[in-house]
Amino acid sequence: MARILGVDPGLTATGWGLLEIASDGTARLRWNTIQAPDGPLSDRLTYINRQIQDVINRHQPDEFAIERPFVHKNVRTAVMLGQAQAAAMIAAASAGMTVHEYPPRQVKEAVTGLGSAEKTAVKDALVARLGLSEIDASADAADALAVAYCHYLMTGANAALELT
Amino acid sequence: MARILGVDPGLTATGWGLLEIASDGTARLRWNTIQAPDGPLSDRLTYINRQIQDVINRHQPDEFAIERPFVHKNVRTAVMLGQAQAAAMIAAASAGMTVHEYPPRQVKEAVTGLGSAEKTAVKDALVARLGLSEIDASADAADALAVAYCHYLMTGANAALELT
Repeated sequence: MARILGVDPGLTATGWGLLEIASDGTARLRWNTIQAPDGPLSDRLTYINRQIQDVINRHQPDEFAIERPFVHKNVRTAVMLGQAQAAAMIAAASAGMTVHEYPPRQVKEAVTGLGSAEKTAVKDALVARLGLSEIDASADAADALAVAYCHYLMTGANAALELT
Repeated sequence: MARILGVDPGLTATGWGLLEIASDGTARLRWNTIQAPDGPLSDRLTYINRQIQDVINRHQPDEFAIERPFVHKNVRTAVMLGQAQAAAMIAAASAGMTVHEYPPRQVKEAVTGLGSAEKTAVKDALVARLGLSEIDASADAADALAVAYCHYLMTGANAALELT
């Protein structure tokens, strides 16, 4: 059983998605969205950090992949995204995991074949490629699943992947 | 005894400075510079996070103040500074402390009277105002002491401050 945890960081909403792949190639998905409470920046970052710690403790992933924030033209937005990413990365590295970073373009290209794909196209492609009827996940959780799937493709593309 | 921990975050070097003020107004300073090892971003951030945790555990500060990174024109530099800041803030907030953020301009103005003061002027003013012969600290640790002193002035300016 290999478990890949993908994270799409954001100060307001951080998505996480867990891709579990059994040795027979069957797979299972879990996901959720972490909604940081309103409040000071330090509390929001600490909340994200603890929630990701909690996900790691509960699900014991073997691999950790995270979306490298899009380099926003707005410096303040870029800094906040980077800080949310830092909160999640610190949780993973503190648990002894190697952090694999993927730029959004690479995630989109891995899942859809097109680096400039829209968010909805990424979700649709993920549903199709994983043989699901649909993924009832927020855009952030779907992005997190896409990051986990991207990491799977980068590291374990030869294994068969079927959903249970 | 009031203990204020000031932090000047950076991905390569993070300074910290502790200002201890006894009830009789006498004060003591401690400081150091955290040199994050070369390596992946996640490991460097986790190192900063743990070292600040360690400083908090050892010195049990009552107050925590941090320099809000200068909004750099270079987005990548701004993001990295913000991430180092996040690592330190998460350590403080996880220890139950309130994080007080001060922009560099406010720190400089509080210590020197001039918001656009040079780093050396900040250090010289700090030495003079605290009645020291000198502070044998790195630029980052001196900035961290300046942040702690700025927070002291903002919250406890009426108390006498003398060095033991």
